[in-house]
Amino acid sequence: MKLLDKGICSIDSVQVSGYREGKYGVTIIYHENSTAVGVYTTNKVYAAPIDITRKHLENGKISAVIVNSGNANCYTKEDGIKKGLQLAQLTADKLGIPVDEVAVASTGVIGRQMPMDILIPVAEKSLSQLENSRESADNAANSILTTDTVKKECAVEHSLKDGTVFRVAGICKGSGMIAPNMGTMLGFITTDLNLPQDILQEALNNSIKKSFNMVVVDGDESTNDTVLLISTNEVQGEYDENFQEALDYVCTSLAKQIARDGEGADKFMEAEASGAKSLDDAIKLSKSIVSSSLVKTALAGADPNWGRIISAMGYSGVDFNPDNVSISIGNEEEDVVIVDKGNVTTYDKPELLEAAEEIMKGKTVIFKVNVHDGEYTATAYGCDLTCEYVHINADYTT
Amino acid sequence: MKLLDKGICSIDSVQVSGYREGKYGVTIIYHENSTAVGVYTTNKVYAAPIDITRKHLENGKISAVIVNSGNANCYTKEDGIKKGLQLAQLTADKLGIPVDEVAVASTGVIGRQMPMDILIPVAEKSLSQLENSRESADNAANSILTTDTVKKECAVEHSLKDGTVFRVAGICKGSGMIAPNMGTMLGFITTDLNLPQDILQEALNNSIKKSFNMVVVDGDESTNDTVLLISTNEVQGEYDENFQEALDYVCTSLAKQIARDGEGADKFMEAEASGAKSLDDAIKLSKSIVSSSLVKTALAGADPNWGRIISAMGYSGVDFNPDNVSISIGNEEEDVVIVDKGNVTTYDKPELLEAAEEIMKGKTVIFKVNVHDGEYTATAYGCDLTCEYVHINADYTT
Repeated sequence: MKLLDKGICSIDSVQVSGYREGKYGVTIIYHENSTAVGVYTTNKVYAAPIDITRKHLENGKISAVIVNSGNANCYTKEDGIKKGLQLAQLTADKLGIPVDEVAVASTGVIGRQMPMDILIPVAEKSLSQLENSRESADNAANSILTTDTVKKECAVEHSLKDGTVFRVAGICKGSGMIAPNMGTMLGFITTDLNLPQDILQEALNNSIKKSFNMVVVDGDESTNDTVLLISTNEVQGEYDENFQEALDYVCTSLAKQIARDGEGADKFMEAEASGAKSLDDAIKLSKSIVSSSLVKTALAGADPNWGRIISAMGYSGVDFNPDNVSISIGNEEEDVVIVDKGNVTTYDKPELLEAAEEIMKGKTVIFKVNVHDGEYTATAYGCDLTCEYVHINADYTT
Repeated sequence: MKLLDKGICSIDSVQVSGYREGKYGVTIIYHENSTAVGVYTTNKVYAAPIDITRKHLENGKISAVIVNSGNANCYTKEDGIKKGLQLAQLTADKLGIPVDEVAVASTGVIGRQMPMDILIPVAEKSLSQLENSRESADNAANSILTTDTVKKECAVEHSLKDGTVFRVAGICKGSGMIAPNMGTMLGFITTDLNLPQDILQEALNNSIKKSFNMVVVDGDESTNDTVLLISTNEVQGEYDENFQEALDYVCTSLAKQIARDGEGADKFMEAEASGAKSLDDAIKLSKSIVSSSLVKTALAGADPNWGRIISAMGYSGVDFNPDNVSISIGNEEEDVVIVDKGNVTTYDKPELLEAAEEIMKGKTVIFKVNVHDGEYTATAYGCDLTCEYVHINADYTT
């Protein structure tokens, strides 16, 4: 697998654009006669564009995606559907494609009507700038952002087992309101490998479980989450696990970028839970740790308060023996064992707690826990909880 | 029902004390031959004192409770049991009662061994000050606190349907790590009504469901939660719903005091969910609202961002029709309807949003939601999420 450096434009036949005025941005992704599948929020309250996109993707064929930031177009009823379709129609007219080949996505404030007087000129300007270039890839990645502080992209080249070379490239946005099950997360992933709709869907579902669904910023789940996987169908080949591997890589990279850019976050954390009786248990344990407000604030303060880790494991709903747990605090280079199969190592060696505190001062902290009950492992991604998170969210709509 | 003003000493035969040195406090509650029942944390990782108290309460008879703050005595294994029993024995020796009639509770840092050189002198001092007075009630309520900023107590006099007068009085501590299912919450409730153990247990379970289990501060659940209900058996009478009413009142008052004193909290919120198909649904809806980090930060910033309320309802796991929901923002005096059976009132009357913003600037905010699906209602209690919460928890152990 090789990393590529042209972002969402790493597949040459895909044209993209992005344009922003103030908090309103519009991103377009354009490739005629693509195959596309989607995964959407499970929130009972979901936005109008999700209705539209789900319908337009029914037959698996799309040619363009239009995404706006600044307004979620959620809880806007018929008006929301009308305005979402208006953006799709604008895209269809400009590109000479049927309106039902346009997918729509939105992110921003909930419960406000879409300001079309602002959005239509921004969309028109964006549509006039479609091209395949490093610059347009930047514009596309930037114009979908809301409270994000950096663009998020990842692209790889990989080959199937028979040597067929293919590419997977993606952009996403997401910063707060993340998890469980995605949060205000928009992701657009392209590939040139020609795969049937059902295989694309299954591959996307698999990847999302391991990536976007393992990110927790604040535990709120958005009304607008959408991840689309779009194939340009240019490369002929049969699905094998190397495609899954490339898609997993891109999705996991994007998911980690979201956690690292969590609202107000200063630090990134991974929690790896292993030795679980089932994958579901491993997921619950790892997500309970990265979701805990007390673990998140301890991370902010570089406080190696491992009692909060074991407490979060204890209320995760997983059955395990607390006296047979191991816990370590580490980073990419080192790993300090704090609890070894139920024995607290720091009672005899207080210097280990100091070493853990040093590690927790860094920008990346990896907690590893093992319940020694089975063979399953899962890793969840999160960030610290800081004052800045409070500031960002205390006056979002005002 | 009449409010009493002598706190946990409102039942004259109960003697209490409290003494603190720095972060270590010890509270004693003493009445020989009482009947007692308890409710404990559901965290898989629970503290040593819970093992001891559960065992000593098996036959329903106790004479004293010793509670320490400053150290949770959790994840301390045999050493924890030994030291918890040491505190019980000290109490038993001083009071001339059997050790198995002493209940033990602890709150503080997890995963550190109990500093008995500090705790024993503090406990001895506390034990030497037992009495029934306004001052000792204050000391008892204060010495169980950790990050709490104010003592929490409530006492009432009520009568059974046959006119028999009885009293219920309680103290509690709890500030962060609250919910679901109690959090670092210690509660000690006394009554003089002579009721059998099984009826006391059922009454306590009923009250806790409506009170302590409806408080959310940060969503972390503690390893040490304990609520004890102790009857001095002085008043002869049969259980009727007036006893439940008095116990509910005391528990709910204490629960609200916890929410109001949430770590770093500046404001108190109630979320009342009505029109639910089941009580479970009503509980899920109301707790999802008070648990949402985004609702909590919106409250901190007095931002009437009701989109976050409907989003939190949407991911609560309850099935409802978003187009038939009503939402209002109010306080004890007024109530502004923002969504009326799916219609957003503020589209036509933006002044309503301003009125809601004014209300949200107050210290108490009540959100009412109705899904118009049935007859069940539940109310959850919470607080805002502020920078102060982050500061308190970022360097708790250091």
